[in-house]
Amino acid sequence: MKHVAVFGAGRIGRIHAGNLARLPGVKLDFVCDPMGDSAAQLAQQLGAQVGDIDAVLANPAIDAVVIGSPTSTHSDLITRAAAAGKHIFCEKPVDLSVPRAIECGQKVAAAGVACMIGFQRRFDPTFNEVRRRLDAGEIGNPEMLVITSRDPGAPPVAYIQQSGGIFRDMLIHDFDVFRWILCADGDEAAWLSATGSVLTDPAVGEAGDFDCTAVTLRTKKGRLCQINTTRRAAYGYDQRFEVLGATGLLQAGNHTPTEVRQWNASGIHADKPEDFFLQRYAAAYRLEIEHFFECLQSGAPFRTTVQDGVKAQILADAAAESARTGRPVEL
Amino acid sequence: MKHVAVFGAGRIGRIHAGNLARLPGVKLDFVCDPMGDSAAQLAQQLGAQVGDIDAVLANPAIDAVVIGSPTSTHSDLITRAAAAGKHIFCEKPVDLSVPRAIECGQKVAAAGVACMIGFQRRFDPTFNEVRRRLDAGEIGNPEMLVITSRDPGAPPVAYIQQSGGIFRDMLIHDFDVFRWILCADGDEAAWLSATGSVLTDPAVGEAGDFDCTAVTLRTKKGRLCQINTTRRAAYGYDQRFEVLGATGLLQAGNHTPTEVRQWNASGIHADKPEDFFLQRYAAAYRLEIEHFFECLQSGAPFRTTVQDGVKAQILADAAAESARTGRPVEL
Amino acid sequence: MKHVAVFGAGRIGRIHAGNLARLPGVKLDFVCDPMGDSAAQLAQQLGAQVGDIDAVLANPAIDAVVIGSPTSTHSDLITRAAAAGKHIFCEKPVDLSVPRAIECGQKVAAAGVACMIGFQRRFDPTFNEVRRRLDAGEIGNPEMLVITSRDPGAPPVAYIQQSGGIFRDMLIHDFDVFRWILCADGDEAAWLSATGSVLTDPAVGEAGDFDCTAVTLRTKKGRLCQINTTRRAAYGYDQRFEVLGATGLLQAGNHTPTEVRQWNASGIHADKPEDFFLQRYAAAYRLEIEHFFECLQSGAPFRTTVQDGVKAQILADAAAESARTGRPVEL
Amino acid sequence: MKHVAVFGAGRIGRIHAGNLARLPGVKLDFVCDPMGDSAAQLAQQLGAQVGDIDAVLANPAIDAVVIGSPTSTHSDLITRAAAAGKHIFCEKPVDLSVPRAIECGQKVAAAGVACMIGFQRRFDPTFNEVRRRLDAGEIGNPEMLVITSRDPGAPPVAYIQQSGGIFRDMLIHDFDVFRWILCADGDEAAWLSATGSVLTDPAVGEAGDFDCTAVTLRTKKGRLCQINTTRRAAYGYDQRFEVLGATGLLQAGNHTPTEVRQWNASGIHADKPEDFFLQRYAAAYRLEIEHFFECLQSGAPFRTTVQDGVKAQILADAAAESARTGRPVEL
Repeated sequence: MKHVAVFGAGRIGRIHAGNLARLPGVKLDFVCDPMGDSAAQLAQQLGAQVGDIDAVLANPAIDAVVIGSPTSTHSDLITRAAAAGKHIFCEKPVDLSVPRAIECGQKVAAAGVACMIGFQRRFDPTFNEVRRRLDAGEIGNPEMLVITSRDPGAPPVAYIQQSGGIFRDMLIHDFDVFRWILCADGDEAAWLSATGSVLTDPAVGEAGDFDCTAVTLRTKKGRLCQINTTRRAAYGYDQRFEVLGATGLLQAGNHTPTEVRQWNASGIHADKPEDFFLQRYAAAYRLEIEHFFECLQSGAPFRTTVQDGVKAQILADAAAESARTGRPVEL
Repeated sequence: MKHVAVFGAGRIGRIHAGNLARLPGVKLDFVCDPMGDSAAQLAQQLGAQVGDIDAVLANPAIDAVVIGSPTSTHSDLITRAAAAGKHIFCEKPVDLSVPRAIECGQKVAAAGVACMIGFQRRFDPTFNEVRRRLDAGEIGNPEMLVITSRDPGAPPVAYIQQSGGIFRDMLIHDFDVFRWILCADGDEAAWLSATGSVLTDPAVGEAGDFDCTAVTLRTKKGRLCQINTTRRAAYGYDQRFEVLGATGLLQAGNHTPTEVRQWNASGIHADKPEDFFLQRYAAAYRLEIEHFFECLQSGAPFRTTVQDGVKAQILADAAAESARTGRPVEL
Repeated sequence: MKHVAVFGAGRIGRIHAGNLARLPGVKLDFVCDPMGDSAAQLAQQLGAQVGDIDAVLANPAIDAVVIGSPTSTHSDLITRAAAAGKHIFCEKPVDLSVPRAIECGQKVAAAGVACMIGFQRRFDPTFNEVRRRLDAGEIGNPEMLVITSRDPGAPPVAYIQQSGGIFRDMLIHDFDVFRWILCADGDEAAWLSATGSVLTDPAVGEAGDFDCTAVTLRTKKGRLCQINTTRRAAYGYDQRFEVLGATGLLQAGNHTPTEVRQWNASGIHADKPEDFFLQRYAAAYRLEIEHFFECLQSGAPFRTTVQDGVKAQILADAAAESARTGRPVEL
Repeated sequence: MKHVAVFGAGRIGRIHAGNLARLPGVKLDFVCDPMGDSAAQLAQQLGAQVGDIDAVLANPAIDAVVIGSPTSTHSDLITRAAAAGKHIFCEKPVDLSVPRAIECGQKVAAAGVACMIGFQRRFDPTFNEVRRRLDAGEIGNPEMLVITSRDPGAPPVAYIQQSGGIFRDMLIHDFDVFRWILCADGDEAAWLSATGSVLTDPAVGEAGDFDCTAVTLRTKKGRLCQINTTRRAAYGYDQRFEVLGATGLLQAGNHTPTEVRQWNASGIHADKPEDFFLQRYAAAYRLEIEHFFECLQSGAPFRTTVQDGVKAQILADAAAESARTGRPVEL
């Protein structure tokens, strides 16, 4: 039985807590959150106790911590948990600062604990099936990747102001997908060009950010990747990619709430995609936390490591620079 | 907190037990099965105890029983549970004999307990969304229903011999869907014609059964329904229907494991449907047991009652007779 | 060069005339129609002359006639053309009376001319590809066929009154598809059950007809077929079928005007099917007339003969009787 | 009646000749081609005569010429036809040299003749329906465009060597689609970044070209466009785009030969796209030549002018430069 504490009882913390509480062989002992009420409510619902971070880290009965607190706390909590000898699952990103993220990775390595970063898209059943077929050679050598990654609506400007910008906040996932899908054989990005616009709300521009972006990457092996994103897709949350290989194409499509088609005088109508990331990636969140505990049990390596987190952030930083200067970045 | 016992630790009993064990406000206390090992394994996995049916029924702490044991035990267990004052969830069918099913319903009514029959398709998210849109008037008055209901492969002949025949064993669900979708306003079947063939395995015919059937129903209001079934759809489990209304059409399609499309020189390839009923109706099984306990809590009526079970079986009997005699049946 | 006259300058006559006028090796010499203006307009548009039927039949330069005049004139014109030694393409049906249709076929045979009946669906690229794959054994032995055949709106009651009824007027095509798809190895219908309703307009019932029908056929080899039709599909012209075989399923879907998908807050919207038969079967009409002249040239047999016409009408008559009496018909 | 000569009896010349020969009010008088046999064969098939370019241009009976000869002859033939007072339809591109294309346009304007450039994609029913819905405001202000444009296989290296490179040879169409879809309100490209790789055949690189490219454009109004292309899509000819607007998304999908779906144990299989441009754009070629003659008749402006040809080539040149230097181009 693995004994676990969850740090953070907000939206994402609740997801992870709910999922791990259902796993056989896992026991959620503590929920920690500065907002005591949130922690108490979540703890009660799942048969756990409210805990204090220092006490939890000092508690020898605790094997692992799951960090779902705000981004700004991640690297500090990872570092402290590593120092306390706890295994760690932490939501992406490691840190908005690449140097701090690297340092964090070094401390984790030094402590000898296992640390997984939550890039949940790698656990989505559809995305993961693409990866499996690539591994099986079903479309040959991958050559091009097109990622469509669109949010259903912009967050409040206050959020945007402290988000680190759209490349670090939103495209970080897409950079990880790029690496996962196109660089699995050790390839890496060699050249990146990014541009962006403000088309939905001038306040986004006033906050120094973009709401629509277009990024192109070329790898050392000459593979090409294009990413298009917007903060506002009026039709909902749009998460697709397609990878072209030497002998075929693999498309990963959206998931929908139902398989109903309605035919009437104006056409044939299907569901729009699942609402937002909590719905779209519900299975992925379940599967990634399961993967974390399975790897802890078996000693197998995690699918997503601190190194993956660092590398995605380096690409996000490069994209932000490229969009700012209007020039490509060599990596 | 509702205290519950599950009767039956086989395939379907395990599904219900696993689902109800996750519900807040519900406590699985006992698992009962003549196969002591199965019961013990399931009980241990879910933190329950192995129980004895008589003891459970005599136990005043138990509020409800969930019956997932073999068909031949259903009406007896329902009757005993009702007599013991327990609320009941029972897998379909109530009984292969319509008179016994009717009698069973009378005893339940007399005992004043709540009894829900598990027609899980009514809880499938896709099917249920069709029902919702019909209620919302989105295609006007329903006029025709076409049900495609195909199993991925025939069960062993030994199963078929004691199954009651394809109409009672397999189409019982389709007759319930017919009533649910086309007769929600109090309409009922007025005329039924059925025919069948043995095309997959002569042993099915030797067992006195069919493996492919075609049924047509006409309701009192003149609505038409066609049902086509086979025991063996080489491509998998195929569960679709479409209902035509005065102003449009609603189609309920299959669910698939992923949304991957693979394009190559031979075409564009999508997933086949989910493997079989445990996969296809996984969400439906979760939602129906949730519905059972919500109704127990709120006092709201169940979506599927003993009456629904009886009426579906009357149609199954009529279809068997029609296919045997080659003549339609007036209802 | 084959010299041709077209009888009938109405909707369907214009289609055939326009298509054959484009064929290399074919020369449209005459257009004949009691409505002189229609004939003159069509003849002028295609560089032909207005003709008189008797004169055309007496004209030794004319090799073939294409009959697109009203149904009631078909068997008489076929008979006269055969007697005059002309090859014949005639729109379905041969005659609303089966005995007259049979007699017509005998006269054609006696005259030794070639006669093709226009069941255009057999030339639709999608439907024909299904036939090709069946021939190639791609789904093994065919077992079940489900035909969805729905018109976008009822014709005037005056038309219905003289149409011969929905089974002869509309389902004649579906009975031909049934025979073409399910009976290609010499199988034939052995049992038929039909029912119908009046759900769209009471005037249809007052005219002694139905507007919705459900037909089931079983063949000598035990194959099953279900056909569902309506005169009014509010969403348009719906022409689909699917055939289940021992190793797979082949679906023939609708054609659409474009491949545009529109995504917005209410869903993902595709085109409804092509408007009606002239649009849906535009390619089929082109290909069937091409087939007619190719066979004349090569001496190969036609894909659709007078015998096919007769057999489809026998099924239509049987369906009308079954729906009237409420009893199945043995064939 | 408009009298026409076609210059070029190769693949594309035959398409245009065949299409215009069917138009009412249009008479194909001459076919001109240095390959006398090709000209003779085409002329005979369509009831025209073999002609000589000088004689045709001097013939006062000829109203218009349709140029489908090799690219290197386009601007010269346009100039000579304009000087002779003939109206002109010319296949894209005007000229591989932008200055020569501009000069050509000036001579056409000075001559006062009408000149249409054949960007057939603007006449594709699916693509054109997207344009119509944009005009109707169905997705609001357009913001992003993603173009997928993939050929089924690379042409011979000899072709590539004299093609002007992938940007001028293949993406010229995509640059025109970009302008047509995203810049209809007078917007224009302001910034372009392109990159490319050689992944299919080293000989392409030795010829100084790419076989895979990724282009990004930003317009003056901040709209974004990404184009991905390859010379070799193993699954066929892939021609899709999607445009995101403020209130929705419009997708233009591929066309397929049939609407057959085959279901079997390995999945559900649909047709791959139409083979190549002659199949995919068959309707577009018909409609563009019809548009040419309709505009000649009515005096309405052409949908695609020499100016459009010049502007697409400027973008192609910019892309070639950007891919060569690794730096974006300001326009």
